[in-house]
Amino acid sequence: MGSINDEIADIDFNVVNPLDPEEFRSQAHKVVDYIADYYKKIEQFPVVSQVVPGYLRKTIPQNSAPNSPESLESILQDVSRYVVPGITHWQSPNFFAYFPASNSTAGLLGEMLGTAFNVVGFNWLSSPAVTELEMLVLDWFGEMLNLPKAFLFSGGGGGGGVIQGTTCEAILCTLVAARDMKLKEIGREKMSKLVVYGSDQTHMSLQKAVQVAGFSEENFRVIKTTKSESFGLSPASLKMAIQSDIQKGFIPLYLCATIGTTSTNAVDPLDSLCDIAQQNGIWVHVDAAYAGSACICPEFRHFMNGVEKANSFSLNAHKWFFSAPDCCCLWLKDPSGLRNSLSVNPTYLKNRATDSGEVVDYKDWQITLSRRFRAMKLWVVMKSYGVANLRKFLRSHVKMAKIFEGLVERDERFEVAVPRNFGMVCFRLSLDEVQKSNMFSLKFLEGINKTGRVYMTHAVVDGMYLIRFAAGGTMTEERHVIMAWKLVQEVAEKILKGV
Amino acid sequence: MGSINDEIADIDFNVVNPLDPEEFRSQAHKVVDYIADYYKKIEQFPVVSQVVPGYLRKTIPQNSAPNSPESLESILQDVSRYVVPGITHWQSPNFFAYFPASNSTAGLLGEMLGTAFNVVGFNWLSSPAVTELEMLVLDWFGEMLNLPKAFLFSGGGGGGGVIQGTTCEAILCTLVAARDMKLKEIGREKMSKLVVYGSDQTHMSLQKAVQVAGFSEENFRVIKTTKSESFGLSPASLKMAIQSDIQKGFIPLYLCATIGTTSTNAVDPLDSLCDIAQQNGIWVHVDAAYAGSACICPEFRHFMNGVEKANSFSLNAHKWFFSAPDCCCLWLKDPSGLRNSLSVNPTYLKNRATDSGEVVDYKDWQITLSRRFRAMKLWVVMKSYGVANLRKFLRSHVKMAKIFEGLVERDERFEVAVPRNFGMVCFRLSLDEVQKSNMFSLKFLEGINKTGRVYMTHAVVDGMYLIRFAAGGTMTEERHVIMAWKLVQEVAEKILKGV
Repeated sequence: MGSINDEIADIDFNVVNPLDPEEFRSQAHKVVDYIADYYKKIEQFPVVSQVVPGYLRKTIPQNSAPNSPESLESILQDVSRYVVPGITHWQSPNFFAYFPASNSTAGLLGEMLGTAFNVVGFNWLSSPAVTELEMLVLDWFGEMLNLPKAFLFSGGGGGGGVIQGTTCEAILCTLVAARDMKLKEIGREKMSKLVVYGSDQTHMSLQKAVQVAGFSEENFRVIKTTKSESFGLSPASLKMAIQSDIQKGFIPLYLCATIGTTSTNAVDPLDSLCDIAQQNGIWVHVDAAYAGSACICPEFRHFMNGVEKANSFSLNAHKWFFSAPDCCCLWLKDPSGLRNSLSVNPTYLKNRATDSGEVVDYKDWQITLSRRFRAMKLWVVMKSYGVANLRKFLRSHVKMAKIFEGLVERDERFEVAVPRNFGMVCFRLSLDEVQKSNMFSLKFLEGINKTGRVYMTHAVVDGMYLIRFAAGGTMTEERHVIMAWKLVQEVAEKILKGV
Repeated sequence: MGSINDEIADIDFNVVNPLDPEEFRSQAHKVVDYIADYYKKIEQFPVVSQVVPGYLRKTIPQNSAPNSPESLESILQDVSRYVVPGITHWQSPNFFAYFPASNSTAGLLGEMLGTAFNVVGFNWLSSPAVTELEMLVLDWFGEMLNLPKAFLFSGGGGGGGVIQGTTCEAILCTLVAARDMKLKEIGREKMSKLVVYGSDQTHMSLQKAVQVAGFSEENFRVIKTTKSESFGLSPASLKMAIQSDIQKGFIPLYLCATIGTTSTNAVDPLDSLCDIAQQNGIWVHVDAAYAGSACICPEFRHFMNGVEKANSFSLNAHKWFFSAPDCCCLWLKDPSGLRNSLSVNPTYLKNRATDSGEVVDYKDWQITLSRRFRAMKLWVVMKSYGVANLRKFLRSHVKMAKIFEGLVERDERFEVAVPRNFGMVCFRLSLDEVQKSNMFSLKFLEGINKTGRVYMTHAVVDGMYLIRFAAGGTMTEERHVIMAWKLVQEVAEKILKGV
């Protein structure tokens, strides 16, 4: 065997070990300090990035990957120099745009730990803790939400939860499961008869899922909502749409109902919608991406009433539950449809645990095979803060929105455009004509964001241009809300001079 | 406005700020030390977890989320006590199973930085740096791979790359794009005529994508490969399958070719396959999930020959490019099909940058809307190590596989079952009958893994049970390969006593 030793001797093992524990330790400490310093000075940066398209190529000196190593110090300098100017600071306490991405210390620590184990938890065997911790924390979370037992593993009826990346995946998964169950019953050739329902306020995730799953436009109903019903999906409208479809020979399949729509935080009347859906054999998915987290507070739980009649329910913990993206929690009463549609079992993954039927293999509950260890961050968040504090955080955000709402209401130049349900206020300039108000509200929003001092975004509902003030940033305190309001007044004064 | 001040005073702002920079700093330093210590002692743990199904619920004392906060010290203790025993240690230097998940210090630091900015980069505006850095690093990576210019943004022909989560998403995206382009041409009612091609060695991602995208089993061809062609997809077989389909009135749509299959690292002859595909208007996607990274070394680049005729190419940087999951790099010559199938443009995301047409909005290049800042880790990896070292790392892994292969070849109790192309050796016990060898090889593998000292996995090709020895773990050194070989010999001795 001498020649083998020669071969070994021949290898160039003088390369640095790219995961030396002490090297990692010293460098990671530096990165932690860099991140802490970033958070400390985050208010110094314009909230929304002020760069122009193509800025990076124009400013960065390197045209290709370096041949030789660069030091961490030089890399962090480059992050500050080239990356930070192009960052829109979602963690800034002055970020009120879109929905919050409310990360937290615990969420970040959990993410670090989960990443460090660096497992690819496709099935139980590939790292049992990844699967079992996920089952556990989704049961814990479900209990906090007072989800019916049927959605929990501990319910014993076959239901349970899974962490997806985003709501887009949760909707796509459940839509595909519903599609395949129905087609198995009626025959694949009837695919063009199936109909998916949402409202004109449903998140774009539904449309994307409809497209990916192979439905055509003609099979997708976007039901109009109205201001008089606060942009919730009206059960009467759903009923009419279904009846009309059945008359035309279509087959109702799937409804996506929303708790807290993106544009205005509208809440669809789940209870009545589920009754209609049940009568027509429709799968109901409840998308509570943003607002779902608030429902761990008993005073918000009523928005979920009716969920016991739905098939699936999801929320994004990376929006308002103090966890880093991506972390969409999806619960199902009966995941067997999901498994039937999504499981693939190549021989190279065959193992005794799977064969025993005693374990959950999450690869069969999602679009992808590989999956990160996302349960870790949820677990660390729940343990670090505890339920009582988590409720306090959420309530403090809602109260901040209430303050802002009160300020808007008291200023006659503005109007609160729709009733506020959670932590977001939709307001606009109050002018005599809708078109005029739209035009000036748009100008006004651009004026606000151009200052770099805050970031808010807009929505358009029923022809009305709205400005969305979404509280919920983890670092936001009352002084930021007051400062935002002062800026709103300043900019309004300038803009309204033009009226 | 006095009453507003009253309202403000009323708020319970005594909650701890869940993202206080100094709190983060001190706690994150502790977590860094915990992680460094874990890596330091990683060899003390059994590589593959030895827990039984349901272990966590049985051992963990808490039945639900705690109401009050727990200290970080207590949480880390719980991680060690309840999570670590259920971890299969993918970072262990003795992990030779599946494919490596070759994380690195730089990959971990990049992940920390990307997560800390906590942006949700769905479109350019939401954080320009996320989009522009991704465009940049995928061009850098493409150049390292010597990908044809047509796949790069800098090529100027409209091509470019995008970071997906996993290969499953890359395949699903491109399949949906191909499907919709073809259906636009021939009419949606012809969906049941479209055919997707792969081999019996193609990764299960293809089958999963086929199911999600709404194809039925009858529209999916799994072409048989043979040992005599080293389990590569034979151009003659593809041609025959296509001709037969056309005769039956089917319409060829999509081919997934593989560089480095999961079971045996087979390489499909891309050049000839692409010729046939081009003649038949078929979209060719090249899945180089594991082996693609090796192609940054000129001596491996020939495996990609023909890629210039393919439509899309992907690899998983989280497999063999020193980056934490998930990080699948996908390049396309013409992403317009992707955009047509996947773009949804709600009014609440309308913005001037998008309207100008000057920016890339990656939400239109993927299944989901939200996306993490994954480019950061690739950038940090490239800069921290430099191209020369990255090649050295990859070559050292391949050399380790060569050593192991040499040892297997020299021991007559074993045989190398298929030619080795990259860092994986497929071997089995050499017995006179195939069935006998299968049975004993299975027993042998179970015997090896039961020791907890290494972890290898299996594959079955053409009725042959193989043991896969996949080198490439970042912490693996030559001594681990030699130790693994010694264990192989020990266990073989015991098992073969039974023959």
